Amino acid sequence: MTAPRQGPLTLRMIATELGVSPSTVSRVLNTQGDAALRWGSPDTVARIRAFAEEHGYSPNPQASSLRTRRSGLIGVLVPRLQDYVLATIYEGIEEAASESGLSTFVTNSLDTTENQRARTRMMIDRRVDGMIYGDAHLDHRFLDEVHGQGLRFTLASRRAGDYPSATVDDVQGGRLVGQHLADTGRREVAVLAGLEFASTARDRTRGLVEALADNGIGVPDNRVVFSGFDPTGGRSAMEQILATGRIPDAIFATNDFAALGAFGVLRDHGIHVPDDVALVGYNDTPLAEGGAVPLTTIRSPMHEMGRQAVGLLLEVLAGKTPESVLLEPELIIRRSSTSAAETTRLSG
Amino acid sequence: MTAPRQGPLTLRMIATELGVSPSTVSRVLNTQGDAALRWGSPDTVARIRAFAEEHGYSPNPQASSLRTRRSGLIGVLVPRLQDYVLATIYEGIEEAASESGLSTFVTNSLDTTENQRARTRMMIDRRVDGMIYGDAHLDHRFLDEVHGQGLRFTLASRRAGDYPSATVDDVQGGRLVGQHLADTGRREVAVLAGLEFASTARDRTRGLVEALADNGIGVPDNRVVFSGFDPTGGRSAMEQILATGRIPDAIFATNDFAALGAFGVLRDHGIHVPDDVALVGYNDTPLAEGGAVPLTTIRSPMHEMGRQAVGLLLEVLAGKTPESVLLEPELIIRRSSTSAAETTRLSG
Repeated sequence: MTAPRQGPLTLRMIATELGVSPSTVSRVLNTQGDAALRWGSPDTVARIRAFAEEHGYSPNPQASSLRTRRSGLIGVLVPRLQDYVLATIYEGIEEAASESGLSTFVTNSLDTTENQRARTRMMIDRRVDGMIYGDAHLDHRFLDEVHGQGLRFTLASRRAGDYPSATVDDVQGGRLVGQHLADTGRREVAVLAGLEFASTARDRTRGLVEALADNGIGVPDNRVVFSGFDPTGGRSAMEQILATGRIPDAIFATNDFAALGAFGVLRDHGIHVPDDVALVGYNDTPLAEGGAVPLTTIRSPMHEMGRQAVGLLLEVLAGKTPESVLLEPELIIRRSSTSAAETTRLSG
Repeated sequence: MTAPRQGPLTLRMIATELGVSPSTVSRVLNTQGDAALRWGSPDTVARIRAFAEEHGYSPNPQASSLRTRRSGLIGVLVPRLQDYVLATIYEGIEEAASESGLSTFVTNSLDTTENQRARTRMMIDRRVDGMIYGDAHLDHRFLDEVHGQGLRFTLASRRAGDYPSATVDDVQGGRLVGQHLADTGRREVAVLAGLEFASTARDRTRGLVEALADNGIGVPDNRVVFSGFDPTGGRSAMEQILATGRIPDAIFATNDFAALGAFGVLRDHGIHVPDDVALVGYNDTPLAEGGAVPLTTIRSPMHEMGRQAVGLLLEVLAGKTPESVLLEPELIIRRSSTSAAETTRLSG
């Protein structure tokens, strides 16, 4: 089987010998474990590895370092790991990375560019092969900066620019909420929109406004309040909306935790959910189902989002330019947006 | 300054030269950055480092590897990173580790011994110098196993056996709740106790029962239900308590998330918090303050707990046997455990 040859074995020789492309050989030999199966069938992967092993071939380290990982380490930045959503996304990242023989470091950026820069530097000092950002800002200035420096990365949770990202289809998620509120007779909708620089906040709000517009319902600008995604943010946005003097008949919080904060404010004002005002959250965290009034929300595949971000990063590290992944949102209707009559049917 | 000498420079020679103990020299030279300040004054650390650098001395790698870190990596196991409490503890771990020039890997064990074993093996394969377990079981069989294999580790959140741990004083936390309930006239107290194999569940319950006993109030066995720390666990424990046919006048959930689940069950049964039943949680997570009825709870210094676990691990890695750290719990009284009359005074 081993043909006599002149000089060292090259990728091209292996490719010719096995009847596959040189890039397939390169990718398979530069990818550990089952992750290599994305580059070829199990049979192809096995044949390439067996051939390389038989001939003592290892990929040219200089060439391969340009497009494949070296340390087996991935850095992950999230706004805060305390946030259930990001913690869940990170669990997916860690799981998928482990399956590919990679290890992950995670740290908080608190959503400031200063921290993003310092923490990215720390990750590079730890010799990570690439990064996954869960804290992208829509203006993507920081991402442009590190991209310009040659850093390889993908995004999870939030999209930005044309960088490969794994997100839920947040516009569609917002649309589902808007259509549900229109269907259940709500006409004056306010939005606790979240952080203005995050695609999650903007896309969810846009989807809601579009779906309501399709139903002839307008949302005045002073009914859309950007604020934090946490209970404190929801509380302050809710107070700002009530301060306008008109009580809306529906509230869409782009995060369950913000919805919880709004709930507290409504309670303090003696405003009843759902009879006076419908309340809808986003992400279907455990508190959505477990609270005093079960919360209508959008279920987003957070864990899968993390897994997909790793898959995208493996492609980026292999020199490819993968398409972003948009996962499907699902509307979960609970008591907080249903009339008393419907409550009995839906609860249980 | 450089005296002529025979053979290689030893730790002992440096110690004699500088008038400090050999173990101090060893520890300082084996600890990076400011972390070395735990072994000596800034002046001593500076003198030892300057001397070693001047003489080109580096610690004997074989000797030092027995008691100090090599990779600069720490592995962390938590039940689930989705749990706000553990995510917060991990943030403290990551912060303190970074400050000491260490990097941390974190992964979930889901509280099963099988996962603990497999994930610890994975961490060892990544060449971690030591572990921090946030998922210790009271029986500490698994910990005995890895301790017997020479693994260095500390515990956070939960204590077990005599292993060095950084926890809140959970017995005291439970006592604070018990005394508060007795002071506010509650006499029939039920406990949503959490996971039976966790010291957090057992110690909090014990403290509560003791403080109530001090006030002449007994807690029957069927009023203590062990279950998960999450909303689902709280819900099922609450249902089990209501199934006994008697409605208690106070509920202590050893976790805010379990309290939230119980809240949903009480609501479904038309039982009012706090007028019919007081509800108290634990940990003071954001949902305690933000929910429909603000929750009385115990504030535990979770972030600091993580930081302390790193400090303990640095001592263990340096060959010491540090004392466990017990942090102080604080009772936060909110509406869920106060009568209507007191509500006005306490809210706002």
